[in-house]
Amino acid sequence: MQNFEFYSPTKIIFGNDILIDLGKTARELGTKALLVYGRNSIRDNGLYDKVITLLGNAGISVTDHPGVKPNPELPHAREGVKKAMDTGAEMIIAVGGGSVIDESKAIAAGACYSGNLWNFYNQEATIKSALPVIAVQTLPATSSETNQVSVLTNPETNEKLGVRSPLIAPKTAFLDPSLTFTIPLQYTAYASFDIMSHLLEGYFTSTDSFAPVQDGFVEGTVRAVMSGFDKVQKNVRDWDARASLMWAGALAWNGLCNAGVQGASIPNHMLEHPLSAIYDIAHGAGLAAIFPAWLKYKKGSIAPRILLFGEKILEMGDEITGVSESPACDKIIDWFVEWIANTGCPVNLREAGINNPDIPELVKQAKVLCGYWGIDGYTDEDLEAVYRLAL
Amino acid sequence: MQNFEFYSPTKIIFGNDILIDLGKTARELGTKALLVYGRNSIRDNGLYDKVITLLGNAGISVTDHPGVKPNPELPHAREGVKKAMDTGAEMIIAVGGGSVIDESKAIAAGACYSGNLWNFYNQEATIKSALPVIAVQTLPATSSETNQVSVLTNPETNEKLGVRSPLIAPKTAFLDPSLTFTIPLQYTAYASFDIMSHLLEGYFTSTDSFAPVQDGFVEGTVRAVMSGFDKVQKNVRDWDARASLMWAGALAWNGLCNAGVQGASIPNHMLEHPLSAIYDIAHGAGLAAIFPAWLKYKKGSIAPRILLFGEKILEMGDEITGVSESPACDKIIDWFVEWIANTGCPVNLREAGINNPDIPELVKQAKVLCGYWGIDGYTDEDLEAVYRLAL
Repeated sequence: MQNFEFYSPTKIIFGNDILIDLGKTARELGTKALLVYGRNSIRDNGLYDKVITLLGNAGISVTDHPGVKPNPELPHAREGVKKAMDTGAEMIIAVGGGSVIDESKAIAAGACYSGNLWNFYNQEATIKSALPVIAVQTLPATSSETNQVSVLTNPETNEKLGVRSPLIAPKTAFLDPSLTFTIPLQYTAYASFDIMSHLLEGYFTSTDSFAPVQDGFVEGTVRAVMSGFDKVQKNVRDWDARASLMWAGALAWNGLCNAGVQGASIPNHMLEHPLSAIYDIAHGAGLAAIFPAWLKYKKGSIAPRILLFGEKILEMGDEITGVSESPACDKIIDWFVEWIANTGCPVNLREAGINNPDIPELVKQAKVLCGYWGIDGYTDEDLEAVYRLAL
Repeated sequence: MQNFEFYSPTKIIFGNDILIDLGKTARELGTKALLVYGRNSIRDNGLYDKVITLLGNAGISVTDHPGVKPNPELPHAREGVKKAMDTGAEMIIAVGGGSVIDESKAIAAGACYSGNLWNFYNQEATIKSALPVIAVQTLPATSSETNQVSVLTNPETNEKLGVRSPLIAPKTAFLDPSLTFTIPLQYTAYASFDIMSHLLEGYFTSTDSFAPVQDGFVEGTVRAVMSGFDKVQKNVRDWDARASLMWAGALAWNGLCNAGVQGASIPNHMLEHPLSAIYDIAHGAGLAAIFPAWLKYKKGSIAPRILLFGEKILEMGDEITGVSESPACDKIIDWFVEWIANTGCPVNLREAGINNPDIPELVKQAKVLCGYWGIDGYTDEDLEAVYRLAL
């Protein structure tokens, strides 16, 4: 284990009908809120009206900031900052998934800053204060509701960068599993794979000789996502299954499950970001499309971790006992790829609708991302090889 | 899963030589500290001098409050409150195990309150403010370094009661595994069993039909404690093993691992507290002495959870596959009791040095505790039966 800091100061309110406390929670922060959300889904399913009523009853005046995109963009965040400043907002209330929460964090910091918002993302400035953020999660995937990270895309420079600060971690996260009943199965699969990917990339890249708490957390959480998704496939309104996906989604990427694990990194995310950026596919779909190729390419160097994955998470004991390392890894990868395919996720680029990828451009962008996020050990040749394997 | 709130706002600084940041962290809170610790161990091993130097270099003036007992007592906490008030302390720095941190929390709340400190514990008053607490953990066991709970004993009324408030959760916890190298193996065993007991009691009493994230967290953490202890038995200065015990100890009882789990409770703790109160044995030793009897007594009603324990935690698959429920449970309990005995913990009252327990008095006290902590389903006859089985 390596030294680490872990700090997740978000208060989580989890369960059925917990949104009833939204007004009281917001009222402790003031009387003026900026309400940030995406497109039409929360208007269609009644959540918008519910939130407005709860806040209104608590004496909170609300300014709307709709239209957050799946990859939230700097200009839209700047509009939010302006609205927050113009209206004297005392809090940002995010109602949506990771994108909405990420942009809300950006607005929260930007509203307390007179400089260029992008400075926080290109590391020219540090967040010194921020408005409090309340998150109402509707699409559990990225742990944005419990972490300190905000990722924005700058369409002027074509950069997608992140900033980390405890000041932008949501003060309170409302997690009501029933709000996720209406997520289509396809998107539930993408989101579930995003959760699993955050966990498994660190698990496979771990070089730690002994970190059993963290290994156990990953193993348990990935099994929970897999069994939860299997149940949701049978019944999209299975409360316990949706609850498990939601709880897993809140904990997978807030720093807990990989705290101090030597070597843990997320190279697949670096390989995926260019895919969704260039070809406009869902992030979770892109992760699923590239992960099998990455596993096959890295098989030789991470075989012990693949075997552990097969034993502890896929529980394939009988099928791999006595089988030598390389074929055992192949069996495990095959089993896993079949499971992914059964969720409805693509398992290669073609299935993701990308038939003739611009591999040099993908490699170029992935390389930049690896540098930005400090992920070593990937040459251009490595990156190209993974993309080719994923065809 | 049931509704729950989870809030653990403590910043955890974990690793080798991390104490170097103590001065800076304290300086952000003020210049006057009350330093709370136990008996002589931190003076003997040099930690006291180190802390004093680090705080002195940061310009912090320190008032000592030594002498916290293993079960911290109200009069001693009151002395600490008086010292904190008299010196204008702006923070409480706890250096020790759960007892020291629990008493520090009491002092932190008491120093901001003009009434009777015990009012917080007997539920006559609510904590409205508290001085910030910094915890330097030296004996990981109770998660006091990351939770909101303080337990005090009132020798005047013979009560041992707890209070819970987010205001007394430590602001920062310093966790350096090397500070635990000098814990004798015997006490490491007791502390490890306390950690496991917090996790396993909830696991065995769970009636949840689907809570796989929480089950996975418990399974992983208990396996980590068992494998970590096995390594410490071979080498008490094994850093990775000590680190795993310390990380498990910080997470086992801060609300994370049993969040929302239906039915989860800690009846063994209720059975143990009277043992350590009357017979002055270590809490972890008492837990180990009573746990096998409790498991045997409850076997019929919790058999599915015992089987899960055997499969997922003890990994006894081959030994219990095809065996019918009751004998499989017996095998699992026997295996576990043997493991406990091998750690050096007592596995019955006699081994704990209690040859002629006052069973009516034990039952009476356990009954009161079950009521106070809201644990249902234990008649006097049940409690007596467990104590008798533990003889």
